[in-house]
Amino acid sequence: MTAVGSAFPDVHPRAGLPRRVTVYEVGPRDGLQAEATTVPVEIKAEYCRRLIGAGISTLEITSFVSPRWVPQLADAEVLLDRLRTEGVLDTDGLRSVVLTPNARGLARAIAAGAREIAVFVSATETFARRNLNSTVAEALADASRVIAGARAAGIAVRGYISMCFGDPWEGRVSPREVVAIARQLLEMGCAGISLGDTIGVATPGHVLALLDELGRAGIAADRLAVHFHDTYGQALANVLSALEYGITEFDSSAGGLGRCPYAEGATGNLATEDLVWMLHGLGIDTGIDLEELVRTSMWMSTHVGHPPVSPVVAALTSGA
Amino acid sequence: MTAVGSAFPDVHPRAGLPRRVTVYEVGPRDGLQAEATTVPVEIKAEYCRRLIGAGISTLEITSFVSPRWVPQLADAEVLLDRLRTEGVLDTDGLRSVVLTPNARGLARAIAAGAREIAVFVSATETFARRNLNSTVAEALADASRVIAGARAAGIAVRGYISMCFGDPWEGRVSPREVVAIARQLLEMGCAGISLGDTIGVATPGHVLALLDELGRAGIAADRLAVHFHDTYGQALANVLSALEYGITEFDSSAGGLGRCPYAEGATGNLATEDLVWMLHGLGIDTGIDLEELVRTSMWMSTHVGHPPVSPVVAALTSGA
Repeated sequence: MTAVGSAFPDVHPRAGLPRRVTVYEVGPRDGLQAEATTVPVEIKAEYCRRLIGAGISTLEITSFVSPRWVPQLADAEVLLDRLRTEGVLDTDGLRSVVLTPNARGLARAIAAGAREIAVFVSATETFARRNLNSTVAEALADASRVIAGARAAGIAVRGYISMCFGDPWEGRVSPREVVAIARQLLEMGCAGISLGDTIGVATPGHVLALLDELGRAGIAADRLAVHFHDTYGQALANVLSALEYGITEFDSSAGGLGRCPYAEGATGNLATEDLVWMLHGLGIDTGIDLEELVRTSMWMSTHVGHPPVSPVVAALTSGA
Repeated sequence: MTAVGSAFPDVHPRAGLPRRVTVYEVGPRDGLQAEATTVPVEIKAEYCRRLIGAGISTLEITSFVSPRWVPQLADAEVLLDRLRTEGVLDTDGLRSVVLTPNARGLARAIAAGAREIAVFVSATETFARRNLNSTVAEALADASRVIAGARAAGIAVRGYISMCFGDPWEGRVSPREVVAIARQLLEMGCAGISLGDTIGVATPGHVLALLDELGRAGIAADRLAVHFHDTYGQALANVLSALEYGITEFDSSAGGLGRCPYAEGATGNLATEDLVWMLHGLGIDTGIDLEELVRTSMWMSTHVGHPPVSPVVAALTSGA
């Protein structure tokens, strides 16, 4: 195993920022679903165990999506059932989530022992049509049924909104449309909302503008998470802007799993290690052991066939 | 030529930030000196012309360093003389700078028609010894002679301080040491100071802590620039923190020139395009035409033999 270690980051807290935040780890789901290589279920289970061992306390494990759409996650039942049987889901303080795009996915997730689910809706009509083959209104109606079903089973629900900051076909997205969808998802019973910058075009002022609009609509920071993609290299600056607003839940993928492994196209999720480096430098507690997380990402990289896409992982494992 | 274009970034100003900043372009010097390929002088001259054509108004052109140390820049006289003769240095509003590590470099720079020079000093003894083969005190004494010589010739001087946020051998660097060196460089006659995070370990609270320390010592934001490396992916978040403090000059390299072209080791300068994307999204004027800058970086990439290392360049040229 590669040596991992650094005297850095130096800790320099900044006034007005949260003292503790939740890192919502999406590597096993959002990461693996975007990798070309399909990883065996026993490796996925070990990956989840190692992430939890590194201090990840909020973990999106898989998606109960049709295997025709996402063959990489066709083993969702087997994986969840294995983690449940082994007691991994009962780890102290662990919040585990599975994505359920529709009522069939919810039924499968409940049968496999899911503890929390996530649903998603697009902020734009074009993406709704292309990704879900529905209108936004139809997607919200579907989400409403899934949320009601989950709540009836005593299961908490997270709502994702895609394309909150821009859409490749429609261009600009009005913050008011995002607010309207967020409000509906919360009224339907979502415990919180993750605001997705699916194409990575947001900048820090845009982040603040959307959060302000949500705040004016009465949606408090503690009901919100942010999910930034790093397509334009802006993800971490956007996290800083969201921290300044008071957001305390941030989505990221360990080792940048799911990102394109070439510098000239590093799209996809912010890497958890890069996020944690900044948070720890700011003196913000995450509960995560950065060196152990780096080791986990290095291990996983051998199973997906390319190095982690994270400057922090690269720096902490080069020549050390 | 690849099509370049985007409806983004959306412009969302944030209260309390500067309305206009200076992008201090270091590609021809800091970028090219770190590339494995030595580029012919006529290509360097065309590069400078194209950067200026894209709106770059502050340009570090080359370094009058010994060719034994940096063979990539052995043509410093020829390049500067050519740009001067062609009238490029007389472009309206252009501030052009050359690095002069010592008295011999200064003499060469003056003979070639330099308009402004830069000197550099390390904040740490170990880096001073390894990079300059001197103590910090000796480096300051050398810098003092170079600054005095330049001022006597009517030439303005920028002072670089390396390792302001950490040192690979010594670890932490005290902000007070940086303040002491900055104060001396200003007293010697430097017009401004660029604070270098040479190993890229800073986080946004650290940036603010150092700037606060400099402010308490009476060194105002308008005498300071920041020079962040993206080794740990933190450069743009650090820029945001510096903007919030009131810094208005930012060093960067077009297309990430000089950066390692592999995602697993993207060390080196922040890419100018990634910086400009954020600044323009914040409604901050740079005078730069982003699309023209991207075209320039794509053109230069054919001469250094690898794609630009900039997510913005990749995103704006992929599939467009």
